[in-house]
Amino acid sequence: MAAGTVTVEQLRDFIAGVYQAVGVPEEQAGIVAGLMAQADLIGADGHGVFRLPQYVRRIRAGGMNPKAVPHIVQERPGAALVDGDNGLGHLATQLAALTAIEKARTQGVAWCGVRNGNHAGPASLYARMVQEAGMIGLYLAVGSANHLPPWGGLELLLSTNPIAVAVPAGEEPPIVLDMATTVAAYGKVKVKAQRGETMPEGWMIDREGRPLTDPKRANEGLLLPIGGYKGYGLALIFGLLAGTLNGAAMGRDVVDFNADDTTVTNTGQAVLAIDIAAFGDPAAFRAQVDRLARDIRGSQRLPGVDRIWLPGEQSRLTRLRREAEGVPVPPALRTQLDALATELGAPPLPG
Amino acid sequence: MAAGTVTVEQLRDFIAGVYQAVGVPEEQAGIVAGLMAQADLIGADGHGVFRLPQYVRRIRAGGMNPKAVPHIVQERPGAALVDGDNGLGHLATQLAALTAIEKARTQGVAWCGVRNGNHAGPASLYARMVQEAGMIGLYLAVGSANHLPPWGGLELLLSTNPIAVAVPAGEEPPIVLDMATTVAAYGKVKVKAQRGETMPEGWMIDREGRPLTDPKRANEGLLLPIGGYKGYGLALIFGLLAGTLNGAAMGRDVVDFNADDTTVTNTGQAVLAIDIAAFGDPAAFRAQVDRLARDIRGSQRLPGVDRIWLPGEQSRLTRLRREAEGVPVPPALRTQLDALATELGAPPLPG
Repeated sequence: MAAGTVTVEQLRDFIAGVYQAVGVPEEQAGIVAGLMAQADLIGADGHGVFRLPQYVRRIRAGGMNPKAVPHIVQERPGAALVDGDNGLGHLATQLAALTAIEKARTQGVAWCGVRNGNHAGPASLYARMVQEAGMIGLYLAVGSANHLPPWGGLELLLSTNPIAVAVPAGEEPPIVLDMATTVAAYGKVKVKAQRGETMPEGWMIDREGRPLTDPKRANEGLLLPIGGYKGYGLALIFGLLAGTLNGAAMGRDVVDFNADDTTVTNTGQAVLAIDIAAFGDPAAFRAQVDRLARDIRGSQRLPGVDRIWLPGEQSRLTRLRREAEGVPVPPALRTQLDALATELGAPPLPG
Repeated sequence: MAAGTVTVEQLRDFIAGVYQAVGVPEEQAGIVAGLMAQADLIGADGHGVFRLPQYVRRIRAGGMNPKAVPHIVQERPGAALVDGDNGLGHLATQLAALTAIEKARTQGVAWCGVRNGNHAGPASLYARMVQEAGMIGLYLAVGSANHLPPWGGLELLLSTNPIAVAVPAGEEPPIVLDMATTVAAYGKVKVKAQRGETMPEGWMIDREGRPLTDPKRANEGLLLPIGGYKGYGLALIFGLLAGTLNGAAMGRDVVDFNADDTTVTNTGQAVLAIDIAAFGDPAAFRAQVDRLARDIRGSQRLPGVDRIWLPGEQSRLTRLRREAEGVPVPPALRTQLDALATELGAPPLPG
C-alpha cells in the first residue's frame, strides 16, 4: 500500500459508518458505501467518497431521506418504474439495474426507470452491473445540475446527461463506455481551476459566444456539447428518456444539488439490460467482441500516438493499480473526511 | 408545384416501377418505394431516390436478393432477431420496427435486431415509425462503409454508425434526433466537393493528423468523431449493438457498398420501442415534452442566433414545404433516373 492511500474495504467501511451515523440503516449504508468505494477504485474520483460530505449535508438538511425504501411502482414483463423514495440515488438505481437483469433473462430485453432518486455516482457502475450478469447494460441519467444550454442558447436548461454502455467480451476486458454529452465534464473544469491551469478552446464559451479558457471564470460560461447540435440533441434525448419518461425532473425543474441542500431533486435514471442469448450464441458474440477489440488495439496509429484504447481500458488499469496499491486520498479530502467523522462520532478513515 | 419537382406519390410510383422491373415483387417494391420517397420528402436527399441507381446496380450484379423474404429467426417476448434474407434493407428494418411496436404494447419495451440486411435509408424513418405508433423509438445502424478510424488510429475500422430517437409530444411536433457519430456525415463531404467548397477544420484530418479541408482529397483523409474519443466510443458501441449482437458485419467485415456491388453486406440494424404507458400517463408525458420544447425554443439566445431549434424541426419544415411545393429533383439526378427507366423499360419519372 502506497502512502496516502486506503484499501477499498477501509473506504467502504468508513463510508458505511458515516451513513449509519446520520440514520441510514446498516444494510443500505453498506450497499451505497460499496458502490461509492467502487467509484474511487475505478478512478471516478469526483463520484466516490469525494461526494460524501455533500450527501451527508443533504441528509442532515432534510433534502434526502436516510430511511428511504426504493420500490417498484409500476411494471410490465419488460419494464418497471422505481420510486427512489428520495433516498441515496445508488439504492434506487441498483434496484432498477437488478430488476432489468431479472426481467431480461426471460423477456430478452428490459428497461427500468427511476424517479424521485438522487445523484447515483458514475454512470458505468450500473451498466457494469448488467454486464457482470453476462448481459449488455446501458444506463442514462439526468445530471444533478444544469450546465449546458441548448445549441445557440444562453440558458442552462440541460445537464451533461451521461450515457454508459458495458458490453461483455470473452478473454478481453469488457468494453465500457462512460461519457458526458459535453466536451468536458464540469468536474474537469473544477480540476483545471484547482490546478491553476487554462482550459483548451472548445470546452466552454462565454455569454457572447467567445472561447472561455480561464476555469476560474467558469461560472460566467457555458459548457459546449460534443459535436455542437449533436451533443445538444443527445443531452436532450437522454434527459427525456431518463427524466421525463419517469416523471423525474428535466429542464427547468432540475435542482442544482451543489447549491441547494434542501429541495427534493427528483432525479431520474434509466437502465436497459439486453440478454445476448436472445439474439444468438453468447460465446460466438464474445469471441467477435474479442476479435474486434484486438483489431482496433492492433491497428495502425497516427504519428505520435502510443496506444489505441478501447473504452473502459483506462479505468480498468486504474482499478488494477488501486487494488494493488490502494486508493489515494488527497490531503485536503482527508482533512474534510476526518472532520466529518469527528463531527458525527463515526469511526475515522484509517491511515 | 415548383419547376423541377415531383410529388411524393410520383416519386414513390417511379421507384416502385423500377424495382418491379428488376424483379422485386409488387408489394415489397411499394413498401421500399414509399420509405425512399419519404426520405426525400424530409430532406434526407442522400438517402432517398438518389440511392436508387446504386441499389438497382447491386440487385442486377447479384449482390442483393430482389425476392427476399425477411423473417424472424429467433424471438422472446421482448426481443426478436430478423434475418433480412439479403434483400432491400428497408424491408427487414421495417419488420424489426413493426415487431418491436407490437411486442412493446404488452411487454412495455422491446428490442429487435436485423442481420443479413442492407442499407435502409435515413435512421429517422424507423424511429419515427415507432413514434407514430405513440411510443418512443430508438434506432441504431452499422453504416454501409467504414470512414472512421478508432481514436488515435489510421485504419478505417468503423462506420459513421448513426442513432435516431423519436419522442412523441402533445401539441408540439415530435422530437426527432437523427445523427451520425462523426462531426460530418460522409455525404456532406461529397456535397462540398461537388460545390467546389472547402470543409471547415474539424471535419477531417489527413494521415499525419493535420486538418484536411479540401473535400476533393477526402479519400486521403479520415473523418473525425464528435467529441474525439467520445464519438469513437459511440460509433463502436452502436456498431456492437446493431451489428455484432445480431451476427451482422462490424469492423473489418463491413463491406464498402459504394465500391463493391456483389459481396453480401450482412448489414445490421436495431430498433427499440418504449411504450410510454408502461412508465406513467402518456398524456402527462406529452404535456411535459411540450413544455420542455417551448422552454428551449423560447430561451435566451447567443448574440447573432435567430432561432433555437429542437431536433427534427428542420426536417419537419422541409417535409411541409415539399408536401406543398414538391420534391426537387436536380437535373443531374433526373438524367440518371431517366436513363435508368429507359434501360429497364420502367415508367419514367413524370415532369
